[in-house]
Amino acid sequence: MLAPILPSPSSSPADSPKPLLQAIAGVKPTRRPVWFMRQAGRSLPEYRRVREGIGMLDSCFMPELLAEITLQPVRRHDVDAAILFSDIVVPLKAAGVGVEIVAGRGPVMERACSSADECASVPILEGDIPELTEGIGLIRQGLTASQTLIGFAGAPFTLASYLVEGGPSKNHEKTKTMMHANPHAWHTLMQRLTPTIIRFLEIQIAAGVEVVQLFDSWVGFITERDYREHVLPYSTQILDAVAQLGVPRIHFGVGTGELLGAMSEAGSEVMGVDWRVPLDVAATRMVTPRVLQGNLDPALLFAGESVVRDEVARICAEADRACASGDALGHIFNLGHGVLPHTDPDAITRAVECVHQH
Amino acid sequence: MLAPILPSPSSSPADSPKPLLQAIAGVKPTRRPVWFMRQAGRSLPEYRRVREGIGMLDSCFMPELLAEITLQPVRRHDVDAAILFSDIVVPLKAAGVGVEIVAGRGPVMERACSSADECASVPILEGDIPELTEGIGLIRQGLTASQTLIGFAGAPFTLASYLVEGGPSKNHEKTKTMMHANPHAWHTLMQRLTPTIIRFLEIQIAAGVEVVQLFDSWVGFITERDYREHVLPYSTQILDAVAQLGVPRIHFGVGTGELLGAMSEAGSEVMGVDWRVPLDVAATRMVTPRVLQGNLDPALLFAGESVVRDEVARICAEADRACASGDALGHIFNLGHGVLPHTDPDAITRAVECVHQH
Repeated sequence: MLAPILPSPSSSPADSPKPLLQAIAGVKPTRRPVWFMRQAGRSLPEYRRVREGIGMLDSCFMPELLAEITLQPVRRHDVDAAILFSDIVVPLKAAGVGVEIVAGRGPVMERACSSADECASVPILEGDIPELTEGIGLIRQGLTASQTLIGFAGAPFTLASYLVEGGPSKNHEKTKTMMHANPHAWHTLMQRLTPTIIRFLEIQIAAGVEVVQLFDSWVGFITERDYREHVLPYSTQILDAVAQLGVPRIHFGVGTGELLGAMSEAGSEVMGVDWRVPLDVAATRMVTPRVLQGNLDPALLFAGESVVRDEVARICAEADRACASGDALGHIFNLGHGVLPHTDPDAITRAVECVHQH
Repeated sequence: MLAPILPSPSSSPADSPKPLLQAIAGVKPTRRPVWFMRQAGRSLPEYRRVREGIGMLDSCFMPELLAEITLQPVRRHDVDAAILFSDIVVPLKAAGVGVEIVAGRGPVMERACSSADECASVPILEGDIPELTEGIGLIRQGLTASQTLIGFAGAPFTLASYLVEGGPSKNHEKTKTMMHANPHAWHTLMQRLTPTIIRFLEIQIAAGVEVVQLFDSWVGFITERDYREHVLPYSTQILDAVAQLGVPRIHFGVGTGELLGAMSEAGSEVMGVDWRVPLDVAATRMVTPRVLQGNLDPALLFAGESVVRDEVARICAEADRACASGDALGHIFNLGHGVLPHTDPDAITRAVECVHQH
């Protein structure tokens, strides 16, 4: 077991020189913090160069490469945070699950889980991941005093969907069938994934990540009713475990307009908002006020500088309105989903500059 | 121009022996009407048999086949309506746009539209489609006095997305870019598509469809702001044109929780609701009370009879609650999206039986 890392009074986020931690602490940041989901990755030519001939999952277990990929967008775009380069299935791979990332398709499991017995035999991550620890150490060395390192884990619903479907799914019918027709198997699976994700985040925190983002790619495919019964208890456990280590938490899912209230009950300081819901509207759906993260539509990075400028202004105004009314506690600028692969990196750099003017 | 078909007092939907038309007219139907989006198609072995060796789009222009495919689910499942078997791109094909349906991918355009000039040159459907007219005549002959024939058209946003992206798109970045960076091109395109869709529906109505569904597959990818500015005026024009022919209208889009209010302004009698939003919640988002259509998650047809029975009971109770409170005017049972290809047809038949018990 790792020793909990509790914030000492002298390292209170409010006193931090890091705009992202300032915003999370609810104090006025020295500048509006911005980072972009998937800022590290395929949009950058320097990423495509260093990944050449190296598998996606392999790259997540190579410390120097992991650090280089994570730092590339920070160097290029002047964002306020690095997000650990990783993949949703890295903790499964580390736990011993047979999984490969197939180009053009996504993560594919050696075998899918359908019965309660199969769910019960999913391995749990217990040990260390020395490559990850080393990589995070290198990343921290590459960041300035004002830049924050965000850790990353996929949420248990999304991991469960990959395991039950055997890979990416358009409709998640096997996952929903298990939830409804075999809830025992479902809960067994979620109870195996939860400690794996907690352990994955503990390793990251012990190694030096300062904030974590729990990312639920597919949760927008289920109803609020199913979310509350089949997902919320597990996401809450994970976020609670991170809080006990004194680390603030960001929680995000795609297409979650109907789920924002329920997701906010899981307890994160920061709620990420998909581009479909204006931030001031999203703020009113939270059970208690939160710091909001979002929510430029990544597709609009293709639409040219003046469109992006207008969108950034609108989003900042919506966030500021929510803060002024007391519905929100702060704003971290981000996209409303990840950077799309063919995005022009210069459009990202310019968007970051623009955010910093607000 | 076709002569408008206005309902005569003696053919008021309230006096109709058809449960679907009764529900639309806001009177208590003789039984709760039910039909399923994509009820005709790949889930049925008899469909796969008759389609063997025949292209999807070709089949939409073969009157006997079109009628056979449309009637197959009505015979098998005892649903209260037939939905014209068609594809979103049929009116484009009929207008002379180069488009083919590529297996495993979807509709692919001979060329994508990117400039205002290219948008201005998209052909408009003006003539008749005799094969469609003949097919609809055959379908009407195959229906009993209590069964309704629903016509079908894709909404202009979805058609525009196919034309601008050149085919199916995960992120619709070209479409959104055109909307924002070249609104002149966008509106030019929508002004070409609107009369095509109106004409396509006029042909169907003249041939005997009794209700139409305007289906917006991809509209859940845009914000309410973009919807109001770039889509709503055109969908409204289309629905208005249908109303002038005296035919009631169903309007549906996928993932439209944030758009239900704006979409209801387009004026349809019936609003289809995706499975993510409970019907009683959806009802409160309408500008004025509507008949609600929906909203069983199609994935749950894989979960077994008892799960479906519970879901049907819940959905009917939610609809009834919305009607009792005055927020809704009636209920047509349906899925919250289309039948998935591998669905067991017997599960559909049993679900229909179950709906009829409520």
